[in-house]
Amino acid sequence: MLDDVALDALFRTARTQNSWRPAPVSDEELRALYDLLKWGPTSANSSPARFVFLRSAEARERLRPALSAGNIDKTMSAPVVAIVAYDPRFYDELPKLFPHADARAWFAGNPELAEETAFRNGTLQGAYLIMAARAIGLDAGPMSGFDRARVDEIFFAERGWKSNFLVNLGHGDGTGLFDRSPRLTFGEACEEL
Amino acid sequence: MLDDVALDALFRTARTQNSWRPAPVSDEELRALYDLLKWGPTSANSSPARFVFLRSAEARERLRPALSAGNIDKTMSAPVVAIVAYDPRFYDELPKLFPHADARAWFAGNPELAEETAFRNGTLQGAYLIMAARAIGLDAGPMSGFDRARVDEIFFAERGWKSNFLVNLGHGDGTGLFDRSPRLTFGEACEEL
Repeated sequence: MLDDVALDALFRTARTQNSWRPAPVSDEELRALYDLLKWGPTSANSSPARFVFLRSAEARERLRPALSAGNIDKTMSAPVVAIVAYDPRFYDELPKLFPHADARAWFAGNPELAEETAFRNGTLQGAYLIMAARAIGLDAGPMSGFDRARVDEIFFAERGWKSNFLVNLGHGDGTGLFDRSPRLTFGEACEEL
Repeated sequence: MLDDVALDALFRTARTQNSWRPAPVSDEELRALYDLLKWGPTSANSSPARFVFLRSAEARERLRPALSAGNIDKTMSAPVVAIVAYDPRFYDELPKLFPHADARAWFAGNPELAEETAFRNGTLQGAYLIMAARAIGLDAGPMSGFDRARVDEIFFAERGWKSNFLVNLGHGDGTGLFDRSPRLTFGEACEEL
């Protein structure tokens, strides 16, 4: 059982930040982030997520035309913007990632299963990124408010990755936060049988 | 920054367990689990995930015919099996969950956006459940090897929820584990721009 400080940092007091202190995110922090999130479980260890970290002002400017209006300022000012994407051909890595069986064959001839697996497990890995960021003392600001097709054109035209969602990373300054919104109760969201 | 014990428990030494000690999962643990995971971020606080905790032998028997053969034994013997599902009509809760704007209208007339949002954010919440379980000292065994349509027929015919994936919960005994499988390196899964 983690202590209350850790549970607060991961879940209870962590917030999606909208405004950033100028403190940068270091090379070491990005590597530590990946070296944690990579251990999160995925189906057949498929690990379909791919992460593009936009660190330069030039890279963020390429993203600008794909962002919803309400997400532009906080994204342009974030120290790092992560594009959480997935590789639709993730199964080509399975001979290495899942050497116990011919898992590549489960997906290579079944585009519908491959797409569902890539999206589900790529999304799980995006959540692991959010949790890993919080675990190493970074704030995360996940967003779906952008044009996925446009991001794919801008960043992935050659390699064929698909964008899923965005996560601003840095140290939030706490301004521009809504009051905490309510959550569903256990009885509203859960059932026991 | 969390300490190494916490980072190990969440990411580095946590394993998907296949065999369980008889120790039960208590009412208090299930509520603590939900009371952590509910705080994880979702798009417009949409919170589309729904969780059905199968605790009785009878409930697990209802699940049996939908399971892949390789998942039957570990699932039938798990203290709790969570069906991670989502409510396709999650947007009906938005006037309460996101009172800042008429967010219900963004989804109610756009079935494609609603489905994508429910699946993505319901999956994020499933990952928060895995992380919250580990945070409170439970082991989690997530699985996609089952017939989703059959589970929906068996458990959700009336209320219309959709199954996403399953998570066995309990205290693993460490038997039946593969050696740790490799992960993609930072250079294979990440790009910096």
